[in-house]
Amino acid sequence: MDSIQLPDDLTRRDGGGSILLVVLDGLGGLPDPDRRRTELEAAKTPSLDALAARSSLGMTIPIGHGITPGSGPAHLALFGYDPLRWVIGRGVLSALGVGFDLASGDVAARLNLATLDPKGRITDRRAGRPSDAEGRRIVERVKGAVSLDGPEEFFLVHEKEHRAVLVLRGAGLEAEVSDTDPQVEGVPPLVPEGRTPGSVRTAQLVSRFLDQAHAALRGEPALSGLLARGFARYDPLPTITERFGLQGVAVANYPMYRGVARLLGMRVPGVPSTDDESVTLLTKHFDPSAFHFLHFKAVDARGEDGDFDAKVRAIEAVDALMPRLTALAPDVLVVTGDHSTPARMKAHSWHHVPLLLSSKWARPTGSEFSESACRGGDLGTFEARHLMSLALAHAGRLSKFGA
Amino acid sequence: MDSIQLPDDLTRRDGGGSILLVVLDGLGGLPDPDRRRTELEAAKTPSLDALAARSSLGMTIPIGHGITPGSGPAHLALFGYDPLRWVIGRGVLSALGVGFDLASGDVAARLNLATLDPKGRITDRRAGRPSDAEGRRIVERVKGAVSLDGPEEFFLVHEKEHRAVLVLRGAGLEAEVSDTDPQVEGVPPLVPEGRTPGSVRTAQLVSRFLDQAHAALRGEPALSGLLARGFARYDPLPTITERFGLQGVAVANYPMYRGVARLLGMRVPGVPSTDDESVTLLTKHFDPSAFHFLHFKAVDARGEDGDFDAKVRAIEAVDALMPRLTALAPDVLVVTGDHSTPARMKAHSWHHVPLLLSSKWARPTGSEFSESACRGGDLGTFEARHLMSLALAHAGRLSKFGA
Repeated sequence: MDSIQLPDDLTRRDGGGSILLVVLDGLGGLPDPDRRRTELEAAKTPSLDALAARSSLGMTIPIGHGITPGSGPAHLALFGYDPLRWVIGRGVLSALGVGFDLASGDVAARLNLATLDPKGRITDRRAGRPSDAEGRRIVERVKGAVSLDGPEEFFLVHEKEHRAVLVLRGAGLEAEVSDTDPQVEGVPPLVPEGRTPGSVRTAQLVSRFLDQAHAALRGEPALSGLLARGFARYDPLPTITERFGLQGVAVANYPMYRGVARLLGMRVPGVPSTDDESVTLLTKHFDPSAFHFLHFKAVDARGEDGDFDAKVRAIEAVDALMPRLTALAPDVLVVTGDHSTPARMKAHSWHHVPLLLSSKWARPTGSEFSESACRGGDLGTFEARHLMSLALAHAGRLSKFGA
Repeated sequence: MDSIQLPDDLTRRDGGGSILLVVLDGLGGLPDPDRRRTELEAAKTPSLDALAARSSLGMTIPIGHGITPGSGPAHLALFGYDPLRWVIGRGVLSALGVGFDLASGDVAARLNLATLDPKGRITDRRAGRPSDAEGRRIVERVKGAVSLDGPEEFFLVHEKEHRAVLVLRGAGLEAEVSDTDPQVEGVPPLVPEGRTPGSVRTAQLVSRFLDQAHAALRGEPALSGLLARGFARYDPLPTITERFGLQGVAVANYPMYRGVARLLGMRVPGVPSTDDESVTLLTKHFDPSAFHFLHFKAVDARGEDGDFDAKVRAIEAVDALMPRLTALAPDVLVVTGDHSTPARMKAHSWHHVPLLLSSKWARPTGSEFSESACRGGDLGTFEARHLMSLALAHAGRLSKFGA
């Protein structure tokens, strides 16, 4: 199925250099019809350009040709995990996103707070987008009212506005459970159904939870229902320490990215609220023998807004932070995106993503960080899941294959 | 060995744009030693160049590095079918080529009309290349003379000159049967041998058929023998509609290409006799929600002739038809070859093949359609079997992978 990936036994356990992976979420773009430049090509990025001039350049295919990735699989690939082999379900991603400390075998689902009419039909799948305080109040009310009456436990965590996460914990639970969220309004929530023996038990628990929650919320004007979707079981992945022999440190101001990093055994030293704070936090925890992941969200968000100029400015804002990152002097510094989010598409896309890899072993080809420079780069066009091998190699962390 | 291919459940069934795949058979070439340009680079192609300027460019690897493909696997790859997984035998390709309506489990073989001497030795493997009328006469004579004496049926179809197709139909037939064509002259035809239980039965039927045919043809001066090769069983493939959720329309003036398209469930609306008629037929049957395959043969034929200048002219002739194709305004227009046929080699080759993909989501890089422009293109160099994913993505026909 795949092209050759790193044989396990090549990873050296006896030292090697540090790696810093900087992800500008949604970095890749499409040319603006007038300027004929992508967002990255239009941005003034003196620091990234100077770095590119001493880097190997390339383009990554996030998952496979033509495949538009969600953030979860796109990041797994960047960390060297084949995203078709290691699938993280929606519920698990949501639980990771709120910082919930999942245990092996937990089943998690994404919940929407919704509005039900007196006959139990959904009138608003997002309950009028309540304030965070309102959302928290409802979550606390449900937690106080529900009892599962058995050996299993439930955990309910508010995320933001109408979003929450449900986690069920118990022996032998499986997650082949159908959504209760019908994705449309005007109908009642669906009854959850289990498709395996362990999932039937999970579905029973979900029904018990939802029935009690709905009884407790009767009379609430807007926040009267809960809709569950994306049931997924948490089966721990091998950590990057196990696989690649080095510690990981992750800094991100969006919870989901911290969650994915934690899933792979990276240390998450804090919760920065701005990109500047992220760099400060990383600087404080920089370890000259570790792998570091630094995530910037704004580039993707401005792309999804469809605002070309704002995406350009978001890239320029990261460029302004680059001198503080190069000052950390990692042995390998990679700057790339997890996927493209062209402003013209207002969405994630499948387009290849520019990448630079700075190291004393680089083969530089250009003096600009852009799609056009990267597509002619030394690394060629390759699947993102091979990046980790390249980074480890440049950090002196892989031994020779064969005699 | 290979890179990630499209997960099945990403294909959207709820609409999306049209795709037109234009194949210039054998498009890729080698530079002429004097001019230092390939056939495509030497050709004057103003329409293709204008299209390239608004397209993503790339190079395809037909099957794998260094592998020279036949037309069957090369086209399967272009249609998104891994040619190493989906193997169509020679006999099946021949039967498809004559428009024979194969049923699941049929075993087909390619036949040569040949000349045998009075001792039964082959003196001409192509029977002096008889006229089509002569070939048809012999085929009818054999059909009238042979009886299999059992539950199985045979079908014999003349193709062209000395070429015909034999199809055997019956329960449990297998196709592991050795060729009777020894590929040399001066020796008698070989005895067919079956290598599996079902194939032993097939070999018995083939022997019975050939013995009776040879008896019937005794006394014919030239057309006195039949040689069979390429036994293959027809096991239907999943259609492009099943796999990718869209209808297919195929236009080609060579039967084999219509046959492959039909095998994948594409509609074949007619039999054009010139390239101009092909474009007219496609125009008449163009469907703004479908996948279209348009095949031009002459470029390959002139390459196989070893005539560099004639191949250049054949490319230019297609270029002259391009305005009528761009006028159809498909959402995605791909122009490429199925493999290279360098005039200097007078044969198919393994060399990468230039490709352009025009779409509103393209990332253009050059203003010329040529090997040199395509190798620096945004799509990079990729295996042809990934083209379909790319085309579907650009047509808005794939959903996101993961959350």
